[in-house]
Amino acid sequence: MRITEVTARDIRFPTSRTLAGSDAVHTSPDYSAAYVVLKTDEPGMEGHGLSFTCGRGTELLVGGVHSLAPLVTGRSLEGIVDDFRGFWRLLASDGQVRWVGPEKGVIHMSMSAIVNAIWDLLAKSKGKPLWKLLADMSPEDLVGVIDFRYIADVLTPEEALEILRKNYATRAEREAELMKSGYPAYTTSAGWLGYSDEKLRSLCREAVAAGWTHVKMKVGADLADDVRRAAIVREEIGEGRKLMVDANQAWDVPTAIEWMRKLAPFRPWWIEEPTSPDDVYGHSVIARAIAPIGVATGEQCQNRVVFKQLMQLDAIKFCQIDACRLGGVNEVLAVLLMAAKFGIPVCPHAGGVGLCEYVQHHSYFDYIAVSASMENRVVEYVDHLHEHFFDPVVVSNSRYFPPTAPGFSITMRPESLDEYEFPNGPVWRSA
Amino acid sequence: MRITEVTARDIRFPTSRTLAGSDAVHTSPDYSAAYVVLKTDEPGMEGHGLSFTCGRGTELLVGGVHSLAPLVTGRSLEGIVDDFRGFWRLLASDGQVRWVGPEKGVIHMSMSAIVNAIWDLLAKSKGKPLWKLLADMSPEDLVGVIDFRYIADVLTPEEALEILRKNYATRAEREAELMKSGYPAYTTSAGWLGYSDEKLRSLCREAVAAGWTHVKMKVGADLADDVRRAAIVREEIGEGRKLMVDANQAWDVPTAIEWMRKLAPFRPWWIEEPTSPDDVYGHSVIARAIAPIGVATGEQCQNRVVFKQLMQLDAIKFCQIDACRLGGVNEVLAVLLMAAKFGIPVCPHAGGVGLCEYVQHHSYFDYIAVSASMENRVVEYVDHLHEHFFDPVVVSNSRYFPPTAPGFSITMRPESLDEYEFPNGPVWRSA
Repeated sequence: MRITEVTARDIRFPTSRTLAGSDAVHTSPDYSAAYVVLKTDEPGMEGHGLSFTCGRGTELLVGGVHSLAPLVTGRSLEGIVDDFRGFWRLLASDGQVRWVGPEKGVIHMSMSAIVNAIWDLLAKSKGKPLWKLLADMSPEDLVGVIDFRYIADVLTPEEALEILRKNYATRAEREAELMKSGYPAYTTSAGWLGYSDEKLRSLCREAVAAGWTHVKMKVGADLADDVRRAAIVREEIGEGRKLMVDANQAWDVPTAIEWMRKLAPFRPWWIEEPTSPDDVYGHSVIARAIAPIGVATGEQCQNRVVFKQLMQLDAIKFCQIDACRLGGVNEVLAVLLMAAKFGIPVCPHAGGVGLCEYVQHHSYFDYIAVSASMENRVVEYVDHLHEHFFDPVVVSNSRYFPPTAPGFSITMRPESLDEYEFPNGPVWRSA
Repeated sequence: MRITEVTARDIRFPTSRTLAGSDAVHTSPDYSAAYVVLKTDEPGMEGHGLSFTCGRGTELLVGGVHSLAPLVTGRSLEGIVDDFRGFWRLLASDGQVRWVGPEKGVIHMSMSAIVNAIWDLLAKSKGKPLWKLLADMSPEDLVGVIDFRYIADVLTPEEALEILRKNYATRAEREAELMKSGYPAYTTSAGWLGYSDEKLRSLCREAVAAGWTHVKMKVGADLADDVRRAAIVREEIGEGRKLMVDANQAWDVPTAIEWMRKLAPFRPWWIEEPTSPDDVYGHSVIARAIAPIGVATGEQCQNRVVFKQLMQLDAIKFCQIDACRLGGVNEVLAVLLMAAKFGIPVCPHAGGVGLCEYVQHHSYFDYIAVSASMENRVVEYVDHLHEHFFDPVVVSNSRYFPPTAPGFSITMRPESLDEYEFPNGPVWRSA
């Protein structure tokens, strides 16, 4: 099967009209995606992928996909998969394009949509959901897709093999358990910053009634507001459930420490994105100062090299991989394996557009083949925009349940793509 | 004066045809630039800026400029300058666009070209070269343009003021000295990786004959080659001159240490970019292992937050700011001040297209107003592509000499812009 064309579209949902998704830094996001389709010479076979964005800027990812497309078009799927590590590095390190990264921001997120579309195509061609495709791969084949460049000081291919081999024999048990009981989720739907106290309280009650055991709340704009709102959430969710708070990079290092000391009485389980996603050392200083509250970050962690350092410096207690910001499945695998080595639970970032659909596959695979544990692990869940996907996530009683349809669950409905395409879809033309 | 339009063009020089600029990672760059012009409502007044690139990918920076242009068009220069910190943050942190960065890669480099064009416009409007405009600003006004977000843990506005005030009274002496004797430069023209041993040797001889005291050589592709070539360079430049080596990120951490131990007999002054520009901690490990050889990095250091950590962790002995990768003059000032606080010499990255023209201004200002020292400081110089600029750098007997023409020295000749515009300029149409 040969890839004959790489297409990219700019798809935007006007979420800023309702303030869903508002936080201290992204005050009015339009949840969006650069949407990639790999066409092939085999009838009916396409690979789909997307990279989540917040509205303006999506056009740059679409441009990035076009810039990288010549490296992909004309290749056979078999040829790519036979040397997936080499192919990944080719995309990540084009001798000219890399200058405007490297391995970060626009070009890395564009690459991610392409790489994930290749995995979608591969999984569809094998008739398996992605998590199952990965779970069925041998440790050697899995290691063969990972680029260890710049992480070999903490994880060698041999160590990666060792981690994967340790759990190999017992995979089937965990797969069966997963199919039966699902994987833990938490909700972010309650605590958006733009909501009133009354709405926050009623959403917390609904969350508890719906069986959620973890609730996340946005903080960082105003300390007095945050203290008041944290008290409301803690009151509503009681002592047995976990409260996470998320500052979305609002603070510098000293402010983060001071602010979290004021929120400590409400016993947050983690503080997410306390400061710049680039400040590895700053996260380590915060982590030491506010323990036992854990530091969580990752949705804007640009690549495996920064995750490596967050782990080396004990800067995070929770690793929040993002399916689109990292360079697709290949780099996610590298981070899952490093996290396993350091004993750090991976709690993927989700929400947005398609992130829940994507990251569930990573966590199922992590449980079956890498960490073999669900302890302290939860996948984010936000209940919106799922209706645009053919194979939306199934979440029930605060658990994600694995899909069985072939692929990466990221294929969107054509009528949604047409309706929300920017700037010419009906939703935008009428605005 | 009001900015009426923001234009951006994709300008590429086919340097890959000669291997000038080749290194271990960028094997065939076409030195290029996204070229920005701010048009105004005042006849004859325009602000020019560019962001250097390596060929493919320039189109993404052009796109980035267009994405940010609505934040700039229609504003008055006076309004921008009155709250330059606020304006800078607006560009760096647009609530939607920032997701595809933030403050890194394509959008940050696009922003840089705009911000530097504003400084060019301001300097032209005051009839001063940029370095002189900065040197004449009060410490308070200088601090007013800097965004201290995420660096306040190492540099507060008060500390920045203190550094600037310390040297304020004696500025005129250093300015006079600079005009008379210039600023130290070093050459990278000799040691490109694609050159033969014979060419390397003859270029070293020419460099010595031309009065160069520092010579840089690219390394990282093959250890035996590097040992042989380092021996040639040391032999040709003798003991009194300094040899720098530059790996352009070719190594992981253990390889960097091992390789540099093999090159240590040739007494390199610094090793530049030994590994991933994102690996702050890795640089600190390398620095400890290979001292007294200094670690230098910065041309791909994405922003002030990463420079901050490189300094906090003693990971660099030389700070190589890049005029285009940092978010323009405002962020460069932040890094100059942090470097002064940590006592780290700033040796800007240059070469490429227009980088020499740009960075000389930073170093003159650093000498006059910030570090007040030339010790261990050299500005990179590569002798190509200067003919395309109206106000090319003046380098003589291994010293840069300050320009006196108003602006940032970055205005290119219209005939060059037309000739090299990609893909429709004559140079590219004929290829």
